Amino acid sequence: MALPQSVFLHECGPREGYQFEGIGQPDKISTADKICLIEALAETGVKAIQMTSFVNPKQVPQMADAEAVVAGVRQKPGINYSCIYLNDIGFKRALATGRVAVHGKLTLTASETFCKRNQKRDFAQDIEMQRRMAALYRDNNVPADYGSIMAAFGCNYEGVVPEARVIGMVARLHDIAAEVGSRLKSMVLADSMGWASPEQVRRVVGAVRNRWPDLRVGLHLHDTRGLAIANAYAGLLEGVEMFDTAVAGLGGCPFAGFKGAAGNVCTEEMVFLCQELGIETGIDLDKMVECARLAQQIVGHPVPSKLLSSTTRRPASPAAAA
Amino acid sequence: MALPQSVFLHECGPREGYQFEGIGQPDKISTADKICLIEALAETGVKAIQMTSFVNPKQVPQMADAEAVVAGVRQKPGINYSCIYLNDIGFKRALATGRVAVHGKLTLTASETFCKRNQKRDFAQDIEMQRRMAALYRDNNVPADYGSIMAAFGCNYEGVVPEARVIGMVARLHDIAAEVGSRLKSMVLADSMGWASPEQVRRVVGAVRNRWPDLRVGLHLHDTRGLAIANAYAGLLEGVEMFDTAVAGLGGCPFAGFKGAAGNVCTEEMVFLCQELGIETGIDLDKMVECARLAQQIVGHPVPSKLLSSTTRRPASPAAAA
Repeated sequence: MALPQSVFLHECGPREGYQFEGIGQPDKISTADKICLIEALAETGVKAIQMTSFVNPKQVPQMADAEAVVAGVRQKPGINYSCIYLNDIGFKRALATGRVAVHGKLTLTASETFCKRNQKRDFAQDIEMQRRMAALYRDNNVPADYGSIMAAFGCNYEGVVPEARVIGMVARLHDIAAEVGSRLKSMVLADSMGWASPEQVRRVVGAVRNRWPDLRVGLHLHDTRGLAIANAYAGLLEGVEMFDTAVAGLGGCPFAGFKGAAGNVCTEEMVFLCQELGIETGIDLDKMVECARLAQQIVGHPVPSKLLSSTTRRPASPAAAA
Repeated sequence: MALPQSVFLHECGPREGYQFEGIGQPDKISTADKICLIEALAETGVKAIQMTSFVNPKQVPQMADAEAVVAGVRQKPGINYSCIYLNDIGFKRALATGRVAVHGKLTLTASETFCKRNQKRDFAQDIEMQRRMAALYRDNNVPADYGSIMAAFGCNYEGVVPEARVIGMVARLHDIAAEVGSRLKSMVLADSMGWASPEQVRRVVGAVRNRWPDLRVGLHLHDTRGLAIANAYAGLLEGVEMFDTAVAGLGGCPFAGFKGAAGNVCTEEMVFLCQELGIETGIDLDKMVECARLAQQIVGHPVPSKLLSSTTRRPASPAAAA
């Protein structure tokens, strides 16, 4: 495969970051600050921003202000403002705002233990929920065209996730979409707990591509063990051109088993990587670094981003010495 | 190229880390703590440890205790205990300890501006110094067989370093070694300021390999902009099997122009990467993580390592669910 010419980066920082920050301290990040970062991100050239999660406020109280966040953001034309919902209640809440780009997203989780902790459902219940979601999408004229597999590379509770299980789940999602007359166009493989290695990324992406050549494969890579950017490069080597990223490297999952673990692959480092590889992102790197600085102020502690402590610029004119 | 079956990791944390930590505060890290970390590292399975730098104590006062560090370390058989010297005075100091594995190392710097700041020499003076070092090695029966190029991928002051300049400098080092009847066996390409991209690593390594197929190529990768582990993976893809790494990701160069910039590629993350890729390191990952924890205690602030906040273990037995 050749490196892609351009990539689509889906900014997840506002959702990834705060669900983790607010554990045990749900009001730590103010709604106003959440809105402020989303509006700053919209100025960077990023084309998709995940604003928040419509999840159970009893489980994730730090996301209880989802409606307020969505209502408060002054949306910029040309940007896809999305959010997360893990069940029908969440989808209906998102839809009710009238201000969220709803996707017909179907998600399965390749580790049942993680599924039980994160989605509060076992495999069978999770499949049933995806069926219910698919029907709900159909009833609301939303195409069920976007699949994702969580814990697609490994799990803190279950260990290695066999490739065959991931392939089986992608097939299952195709079936569920077909049941409501839809067809999956995209499939995001999520390394929810940061277990992927670069060669595994290449292998699993290759296996999915091999079976479904027309499916657009995306990657959602956590940096729990420091390999996210290497895994992203491995994805690029396989021609992957859709990535979830988080400004400043915010993130971490409250149900993944480790507090203090690093978040998503860092947006500005991904933009920098792409820039150095000659891959177009459409994002202004300096503006994204400024957003990372803002994110760091908002969370009130050092963020994982290394680029933030450095500089994005090589000097303009190389010295005369050769 | 195939991935290597095993890699040689050269632990530079004790040298990389403290030169940076001690800026403006030369006594911040006690000699006893420096010794303690070196002795802990020796228990991990690592085969080479860079203990300290014999550099001008007026320029780098935090390294003024180099002799005391070397004298204090109880050396473990089978480990190569080395150190850094940038000129004849440093080499003689190292030699005088009688306790340092001295290498006939010849180093040129691909950015003259960085060379002036870091080595306090211009290109011509630097070449003359390498000649003097080569003669000194010959006089002490040390083969001048180990080359390195600093700033081989880019420079904070000069920007992009042309590949042709790196090749020219490697050729020059071969000539200098030949002048004293030696032959270079190894060549470390150092991304001293963290400017490399994965594709550039592959290109430059490939170019050096192409011209000198018998030369063992090593990589010294800084993580200034978050790409070190991706660059390391790129090196592995080119078959590179010798890397400088730093426990906990310690490091950063005091003359590189940015305070707070991240250090070297993190040893434990490199070991983890190799483990996941099936590449032997000889290092016990859990013991290395414990060393990273010790390093963090010693420096007294959070270190760049992400693995340190996570876990190195997948659960032993995958769950029954498939």
